[in-house]
Amino acid sequence: MVIVSFMPEGKRVEAKIGESLLEVARRAGIDIIGPCNGKALCGKCMVKIIVGSDSISDLTSDEKIVLSSKKLNEGYRLSCRCKIVRENAISVFVPGESRLGEYVVSVEGEVFEERFDSVVQKVNVTLPAKVWGALDEVVSSLSVPKRFNLHALQKLSRIADVGIEKKLSLITYNDEIIDVRENCRPLGFAVDVGTTKVVGYLVDLMSGKTLSTVSDINPQIAYGEDVVSRLDYALKEGVKALQEKIISCINKLINTACDTTGSDVEDVYEVVAVGNTVMHHFLLCLEPKRLAYFPYTPTTREPLCVMAKSVGIRANAEARLFMPPLIAGYIGSDVVADIIATNMQEDADAAILVDVGTNTEIVVKKDGKFVACSTASGPAFEGAHITYGMRATIGAIYRIEVMANGEVSYSVIGNVKPRGMTGSAVVDLVAGLFTTGLMDKSGRLNTNVGTRRIRMNDRNYPEFVVEYKENTAIGEDIVLTQKDIREIQLAKAAIRTGMNILMKKLQVDVSEAERLYVAGTFGFFLNPISAKIIGLYPNIDLSKIRIVGNAAGAGARAMLLSKTLRDVACNVAKKIEYVELAAEPEFQKEFLEAIPMPETCAI
Amino acid sequence: MVIVSFMPEGKRVEAKIGESLLEVARRAGIDIIGPCNGKALCGKCMVKIIVGSDSISDLTSDEKIVLSSKKLNEGYRLSCRCKIVRENAISVFVPGESRLGEYVVSVEGEVFEERFDSVVQKVNVTLPAKVWGALDEVVSSLSVPKRFNLHALQKLSRIADVGIEKKLSLITYNDEIIDVRENCRPLGFAVDVGTTKVVGYLVDLMSGKTLSTVSDINPQIAYGEDVVSRLDYALKEGVKALQEKIISCINKLINTACDTTGSDVEDVYEVVAVGNTVMHHFLLCLEPKRLAYFPYTPTTREPLCVMAKSVGIRANAEARLFMPPLIAGYIGSDVVADIIATNMQEDADAAILVDVGTNTEIVVKKDGKFVACSTASGPAFEGAHITYGMRATIGAIYRIEVMANGEVSYSVIGNVKPRGMTGSAVVDLVAGLFTTGLMDKSGRLNTNVGTRRIRMNDRNYPEFVVEYKENTAIGEDIVLTQKDIREIQLAKAAIRTGMNILMKKLQVDVSEAERLYVAGTFGFFLNPISAKIIGLYPNIDLSKIRIVGNAAGAGARAMLLSKTLRDVACNVAKKIEYVELAAEPEFQKEFLEAIPMPETCAI
Repeated sequence: MVIVSFMPEGKRVEAKIGESLLEVARRAGIDIIGPCNGKALCGKCMVKIIVGSDSISDLTSDEKIVLSSKKLNEGYRLSCRCKIVRENAISVFVPGESRLGEYVVSVEGEVFEERFDSVVQKVNVTLPAKVWGALDEVVSSLSVPKRFNLHALQKLSRIADVGIEKKLSLITYNDEIIDVRENCRPLGFAVDVGTTKVVGYLVDLMSGKTLSTVSDINPQIAYGEDVVSRLDYALKEGVKALQEKIISCINKLINTACDTTGSDVEDVYEVVAVGNTVMHHFLLCLEPKRLAYFPYTPTTREPLCVMAKSVGIRANAEARLFMPPLIAGYIGSDVVADIIATNMQEDADAAILVDVGTNTEIVVKKDGKFVACSTASGPAFEGAHITYGMRATIGAIYRIEVMANGEVSYSVIGNVKPRGMTGSAVVDLVAGLFTTGLMDKSGRLNTNVGTRRIRMNDRNYPEFVVEYKENTAIGEDIVLTQKDIREIQLAKAAIRTGMNILMKKLQVDVSEAERLYVAGTFGFFLNPISAKIIGLYPNIDLSKIRIVGNAAGAGARAMLLSKTLRDVACNVAKKIEYVELAAEPEFQKEFLEAIPMPETCAI
Repeated sequence: MVIVSFMPEGKRVEAKIGESLLEVARRAGIDIIGPCNGKALCGKCMVKIIVGSDSISDLTSDEKIVLSSKKLNEGYRLSCRCKIVRENAISVFVPGESRLGEYVVSVEGEVFEERFDSVVQKVNVTLPAKVWGALDEVVSSLSVPKRFNLHALQKLSRIADVGIEKKLSLITYNDEIIDVRENCRPLGFAVDVGTTKVVGYLVDLMSGKTLSTVSDINPQIAYGEDVVSRLDYALKEGVKALQEKIISCINKLINTACDTTGSDVEDVYEVVAVGNTVMHHFLLCLEPKRLAYFPYTPTTREPLCVMAKSVGIRANAEARLFMPPLIAGYIGSDVVADIIATNMQEDADAAILVDVGTNTEIVVKKDGKFVACSTASGPAFEGAHITYGMRATIGAIYRIEVMANGEVSYSVIGNVKPRGMTGSAVVDLVAGLFTTGLMDKSGRLNTNVGTRRIRMNDRNYPEFVVEYKENTAIGEDIVLTQKDIREIQLAKAAIRTGMNILMKKLQVDVSEAERLYVAGTFGFFLNPISAKIIGLYPNIDLSKIRIVGNAAGAGARAMLLSKTLRDVACNVAKKIEYVELAAEPEFQKEFLEAIPMPETCAI
């Protein structure tokens, strides 16, 4: 065994030869970013070996491709490619930019520490050799005055030998004793079921610590990339197959998390799952017929607590599955989890929460009142419907700066020749074109300025050349077309319309809003300055913006660890007034007004 | 189809050609005795055809053997042998002696009619074509303000088509909606799990009517005839096999009851099972280790409500199993059910309940206080340990009268040459010997009186000849030995000791007791006059004795049909103080005093 220390925390963890530093770090609860999941594509899991570099495998060609020469010179490595090869002490520095947790953890910190009261509890008791009366009465009188359920009685009757003193661990869930163990460290599993990605957290319910973070692609992707095509499938073929896919994914994640931490699946007593309403219905095998048609009625919005095994989740036989409440057909429990993770409900002043995606959910809060809406912002921000748009994988330009002279500087994932642009890069670019005057307020490219990069395409529409084919990996120019700009404008207008209508509902002026919480992956990578410039975010002071990353996952963990926060979530969900944007009379007017670039923008 | 009317109730029921009158009667809820279950052995299921005898199959040779010539001359038939052969109206008279229900029904009558409030309820609702908000909220607002469980939500999501008005039946269990059906008649199944026999009742939970009574031998008999040998098996091999046996028996009974009444197993939403503590533990797969050793600690005494499928019962997937509370290791929920069936808890005056068996349970009640005990009366009353004792099957003498001249007159089951005597016949005989002076107070046969029937056996002990070998079916004399009398004395002394100690605990004098409830099969067939004469029952006025038959089954049905009575049962069970006879200082003295015949006995 080797001891690996992670800096600057100084966290020490045991590791074995052959393990990668990424695996070890995750086991230690160090939340290293790794969108590519150890495939050396994204270059995000950088670390620096401080002590014991000769105990780590040599620099790989992968790393040379993905890391910039500057980072390589500074001694950075990809933790997914650093295997332990020798049994010597190792010390590793994890920079802030490699941590997904940087933002999230600070949010969690506030919330968790004071409110750690998990529903699952463990109570130790010594059963004396001789007892009178019924066994369960004796045990309750020595420990907690709670009732045993049948499973716990069966275990008690097996474990409690006649005439022998016995140490028992009682596992309780709310007012019930659900299991009797000879020893046990009760665990919980929080899972954020995204349409694309499923992220799970294995949590020690006694310490509150996250033991392991695991993720996988949502295998329902076999039935369609987006929610709409999966709904189509479910309507035709029934929801069962979709349920089986997500359940098997969750089971795999639980197994992986337990395996990597040396935990026993038997010790997992509760699973908390959040997701959008469609994911929620699929997971519970609720036919989503009505979710496909206006007014998008869910079967239920109530929080549900069921036996985990009743939906096929394999954990302890008595494990429960808690599904936090939903808000509407297009606002799911992931948004409730976002709210809990940000602690938004306790903000004294007005606050706004936005989770940008193909559907963007928005919540506005003031004086204890909540309004929420969902808006079909479309997939432009994920790179779709943009001529050279792509997902954030190797070869994607993920950041662009437009110079005053009309030239550009950009960064590519993997530090290779570019293949396209991520949605956040496109937002950077549109913002840059506007601030440099290459694009006017209405979004039209200015063909009269002196830059070679603005040109007319063969159908006589203007376009902006980001990179010429000599320098791209695709043998053609990477450009931003006038149509692409229009797509971005429509997407941001949809979001701003939602925000504006909600703010008007609660009479919140942007100057009153003390916080803009930006949840979700896209928002995490999006430059908030660019977002403000194009008017995707309102004109709010940068210091008031909190980028909270995967707040849904953090909120799910919070609800797993805290009965209080679970109750808070249920109360907040009941309070939230859902606004159906399409039914709002001023929708059309607001939308048209939100298309141009904003007049003023204080950076 | 034929219409069969049963008299004197005048109950009319449809029947098919080929059905036996016993089957038809049971379907009609006419509770005809049939210990042999349609095998034409017991001769108990007698009926008289009033109208339409030519529509019934001819007299069989079975009937000629089993029925007395007197009954045959009066036109009695065995209902199990009367098949419907022609489609004509039929009218059948069911005499009181053919009805197990005679006693039980009168008890049930009082209890059920005013307190019929089953836990399972059905609520009809019409879901409009178009709904806003969540489906479950809409349905609740139109019907009952109860929460849907996951299964009900899944059903609701499947049944409720978009844009179509729909009639739904909601099935509720306590505060929860557990199922959604398009139409359904919710049923329940009450079962009395005896060590030897399992009796089940299929009940319509909307009307409260018993649709079918079914019974079978407890298949655990493969692991031992009595509780002690089955406990032995469970201690060595584990309780699982014993659980599986009883569950498969219950499943078979549910199927049979549903098949014979054209009901659907899917419609069974609750099962209530009563039994002694060992049967209770076996059914729930609770290891009975401690039940085998003093102080006979059960794992629990609490009432339990679990998913029926969690123990393997096959009914509706959401069906519940309710297990009423226990009182002690040797006093089970069958005794609680006895109390509920007799309504003893509401008697204004003192009352006694006794359920005679290998273990006899006794409950004494006064001023709202209850005491109970169990006493090992042994199997003498079931015919075991008696030289010519036997169970109540064909060839058993079941009633004996001793004449003043020392001669005897007796009745044999099946009206054949006798093979032995039932326990109740032995009690008759001992009582007769005492009242005619052939036996003295101490139980000694009087060899000085002038009857040929008292003689010395080859080991020079006196014995009484009941029948000489010329008239028996076994080629030898049927006798009652001095040792047999002693067995009966020990058995009845055990019971009386229990009663006396309990009565002293509550300071109940026998003159105060307003009721003696006699529950169970043995007590049903026992002549209460004989029982009083030998001192098995205390010296209580005959009019105060209530022979309640299978009160445990009736009590189980009562708890199935009434939430109120279920609550009453739980409260009563908590109130009952268990008395461990062996730990009572006066036990030995009381026991010795109870062995002789009583001084006085007012008949």
